Amino acid sequence: MTAVREPQQERSRATQQRLLEATVDCLFRYGWSGATTTVIAERAGVSRGAQLHHYPTRAALVLAAVQHLAERRADEIRTEAATLTGDLHERVDKVLDLLANAFTGPLFVAALEVWVAARTDPELRDALVPLEARVGREMHRLTVDVLGADESKPGVREGVQATLDLLRGLGVANLLTDDGPRRAQLLAAWKQQLITII
Amino acid sequence: MTAVREPQQERSRATQQRLLEATVDCLFRYGWSGATTTVIAERAGVSRGAQLHHYPTRAALVLAAVQHLAERRADEIRTEAATLTGDLHERVDKVLDLLANAFTGPLFVAALEVWVAARTDPELRDALVPLEARVGREMHRLTVDVLGADESKPGVREGVQATLDLLRGLGVANLLTDDGPRRAQLLAAWKQQLITII
Repeated sequence: MTAVREPQQERSRATQQRLLEATVDCLFRYGWSGATTTVIAERAGVSRGAQLHHYPTRAALVLAAVQHLAERRADEIRTEAATLTGDLHERVDKVLDLLANAFTGPLFVAALEVWVAARTDPELRDALVPLEARVGREMHRLTVDVLGADESKPGVREGVQATLDLLRGLGVANLLTDDGPRRAQLLAAWKQQLITII
Repeated sequence: MTAVREPQQERSRATQQRLLEATVDCLFRYGWSGATTTVIAERAGVSRGAQLHHYPTRAALVLAAVQHLAERRADEIRTEAATLTGDLHERVDKVLDLLANAFTGPLFVAALEVWVAARTDPELRDALVPLEARVGREMHRLTVDVLGADESKPGVREGVQATLDLLRGLGVANLLTDDGPRRAQLLAAWKQQLITII
């Protein structure tokens, strides 16, 4: 029985994965209103029946996608940060670049589409708020870990929070035009500040 | 002839003002997709004909509204900042509170709705990008002025930019829940940082 069930479970997982990645991709390409469940199922190459089996509502699909991709992104940052050697200057430099890439990438944009839609959609908002609180806490923890920061030191907690809020602001500033050159200058200055804090 | 024309011009201006304020109000209340021209005209108490006379397209109305309210907000911040006395600590404290209020208020939320919609609407984006560049430059100038900062000092320009990017990030963090207590703590720490920079 195990031999039969396992391939089935694997297929299910692969289908879910394809749906979640197609959801983020469609939110990024078409925005909230364009990323309908029909468009997402088509992009994933999954039947509507299979889609409804795994994610019965659009909200369920979107929330699972934001969570899944946030976890994947966090894993990637941890993996890349694990290879860092060198002193604090180099660590802060590389970690902030990794984070800045995350906050200007497709997942950030897709998540922003969902946040803005949830603002005027009470049902979606109620489901999203606890998820975002968890994702936010994990992002904070991840940042503290990969920076090698000591939160018992006064000001460190606020410095890490300010870094993440600054990066969120930079992500929004990058929505309509390439803000890369300005962001690079600003990050260079912030890295110097952050080193004096942590 | 002047006597006849002037009241007419005044009525036109009053109609425009009502439409622009209703636009921001509807974007804030109903989001981009809910803030249709019909809903906005109703809220403003203006006929569809008069609305089309002043703003022939939804994009024209929305862009004029974002610009008008950004100018009004800047005037308000200048006026409030002009009454500030006291030392640099007090000035930074009060100015950052004024700015944080602006970045969590209805105009910020309405503008965010427009930015996100413009990301996947090439026509709206092309019209919005130069306007946002101008509004961004004016906001930077305003912040330098009301802080009494000297941009010829190294690091001051980046410090002011980081402040505005941080505030934008804090604005987004406040979209779905009241982030006020966390924001107050973080701003208190940021004010200390900023004082050492400017």
